[in-house]
Amino acid sequence: MRNTSKNKVTCKKQDNMEFKVNKPDNDIYESITQKIDNLNKPKGSMGILEDIATRICLIQHTLSPTLNKPCHLLFAADHGIQFEGVSASPREVTWQQMVNFTNGGGGVNMLCRQHGFELKLIDVGVDHDLSDYPDILNKKIAMGTKNFLTQSAMDEEQYEKALAVGAEMVEECAMEGSDIICLGEMGIGNTSPSSVWMSLLCNFPLALCVGAGSGLSEDGVRHKYEVLSTAIYHFMTKENKMYRPYNMYQSLASAQPENVIRYFGGFEMIASIGAMLKAAELNIIILIDGFIMTACALAAKCLCPNVVDYMIFGHQGDELGHAHLLEYLDVKPILNLGLRLGEGTGALCAFPIVDTAVRMMNEMGNFQDNNITKYF
Amino acid sequence: MRNTSKNKVTCKKQDNMEFKVNKPDNDIYESITQKIDNLNKPKGSMGILEDIATRICLIQHTLSPTLNKPCHLLFAADHGIQFEGVSASPREVTWQQMVNFTNGGGGVNMLCRQHGFELKLIDVGVDHDLSDYPDILNKKIAMGTKNFLTQSAMDEEQYEKALAVGAEMVEECAMEGSDIICLGEMGIGNTSPSSVWMSLLCNFPLALCVGAGSGLSEDGVRHKYEVLSTAIYHFMTKENKMYRPYNMYQSLASAQPENVIRYFGGFEMIASIGAMLKAAELNIIILIDGFIMTACALAAKCLCPNVVDYMIFGHQGDELGHAHLLEYLDVKPILNLGLRLGEGTGALCAFPIVDTAVRMMNEMGNFQDNNITKYF
Repeated sequence: MRNTSKNKVTCKKQDNMEFKVNKPDNDIYESITQKIDNLNKPKGSMGILEDIATRICLIQHTLSPTLNKPCHLLFAADHGIQFEGVSASPREVTWQQMVNFTNGGGGVNMLCRQHGFELKLIDVGVDHDLSDYPDILNKKIAMGTKNFLTQSAMDEEQYEKALAVGAEMVEECAMEGSDIICLGEMGIGNTSPSSVWMSLLCNFPLALCVGAGSGLSEDGVRHKYEVLSTAIYHFMTKENKMYRPYNMYQSLASAQPENVIRYFGGFEMIASIGAMLKAAELNIIILIDGFIMTACALAAKCLCPNVVDYMIFGHQGDELGHAHLLEYLDVKPILNLGLRLGEGTGALCAFPIVDTAVRMMNEMGNFQDNNITKYF
Repeated sequence: MRNTSKNKVTCKKQDNMEFKVNKPDNDIYESITQKIDNLNKPKGSMGILEDIATRICLIQHTLSPTLNKPCHLLFAADHGIQFEGVSASPREVTWQQMVNFTNGGGGVNMLCRQHGFELKLIDVGVDHDLSDYPDILNKKIAMGTKNFLTQSAMDEEQYEKALAVGAEMVEECAMEGSDIICLGEMGIGNTSPSSVWMSLLCNFPLALCVGAGSGLSEDGVRHKYEVLSTAIYHFMTKENKMYRPYNMYQSLASAQPENVIRYFGGFEMIASIGAMLKAAELNIIILIDGFIMTACALAAKCLCPNVVDYMIFGHQGDELGHAHLLEYLDVKPILNLGLRLGEGTGALCAFPIVDTAVRMMNEMGNFQDNNITKYF
């Protein structure tokens, strides 16, 4: 069994929730590198597959990694801020798409079938009664968040509940034998909280973080920017009694990231953060999707910095800000296919590449076994 | 059945070889676009998957495309120019790797298993007797090409034979029901002919086309550049009686691309060109790998311009020049994983993305069927 006594870090976030996310044990790093360099190929010629393989071997603390029972967790919820007209898509698309997913007709269904993922659909706060659909797990916290233009999207109890739902789902995956999870979301309006998190948690100007989402016009993006800007001002001045908000960004966010995360977050996003932290705690690989899931990864990192060592970033989308956010996190995603569908589809598209990296470690011959002249 | 009477183009190249490569019939383009735009997703949100789906639907002239019996053709041969020390890898690696592939331990084996490709290994000119290996098809034309530093790599008969081997292999695939082929190569030294082709056929300065191959040092790259530069000078002045070679590049190459292709080419590269042209003739999708296969795609395009409409470019490698060559061809590959292994591995890695594009056309629901509010 793996020794996890080194570098133990406990990230306490709420009275009742606690995650222990250690850095992966580095003691086999040399052995991993040796094994990769001795495969029958020019050194380094498998490019980023070698980096992915290294990361997975570290997470699993083995030279023969596995990708058993891949599971895709799709959390869904609605957003109070959506009522401000910040999304090109109507609110009802959230529940309609969830129903569509139970019929197998969504992009996410197709990709889960293609790559052998079990799909779990979890309602953490959709603004519609979905209890008639047995394939949708009912973990509803509320009929959507409150409108963060003038108030906190959720209270502390709701925040904690959402974290717990995410964590529980991953515990279930772990019991079923999953080595890897992928996370997706359905929630019309959720690029808005993502942009605000990015701005406040990275100390980036908001304009760098706001994009077209599922397809806003130029005017639509400007309106979204104004709404979010107003919401941040209100949060800074009224809620936190600060009168020079922009100078206070960094100190506030770094001192109390939970406040920012809770005030603006969506239930599906907080659940995803809970899932990420629990997965890291259980040495499960986390496949990260586009802008929204990267914003959740950022938030998770603010809570437990080591969590990023368990993540593989699948896809860089076209949403303005995603490239900057990835750069801030110092990660390079596997794909750049111009997807902006959400649902976790970008990450799922990257799975076969991750699979190839694992197969490389287990299936490729080496120079000795195959009697090939080792070339440098 | 598909009407192929429009835009018929016959590309006659030799007395005995003839390929008929038409442009895919464009009459269903509108129907394809309509079908894609009505899938239950924001318009355009599947990014380049939508472009790939469109291309495949055009090639197959259908709205419900298929990817039956994918086949990977791996042509292998040695190169006379290798004796000039232009590669970091020793010559014997060509045959040793071919034997390794028969044991299933190569990168290409792993990827063919992963993605359900049949692997066909074809010896068109390896400098070693491989007739004891029943899994390697013996189509040997010679024990490697001649050294193009001072003479033509092959004569016209050999050139024609190599083209024919490629074409025959694809005819075999077609008879077995393949909708898609992938092409790979094994041939130590084959970035050298690729660089020369690129320089002469695109009219690019040679320095832009020469890179490290499987891992040359800086000095090694300089030596390779000098060797290739000398070879081109000899070809221009002695073989073609031209005394201002660099001014004559474009006119010579565009007037007689066959001469350039034959003089510098490798047998595995010419066979790949034959395979590309035959595949296009038979409406078979061609998955293109890294630098060497892109150079072959360029050569095939010089012979039959329409052939590129049947190609999907899988991977952009790190080899200097590949990015320029892709830009010259006006194509954007699916992946950029930093692979430089050859064997067709980059293209194979891209196959699941192509598969997703095809599944999108066949499996995703549309707005009407799923009762989802259409959001443009």
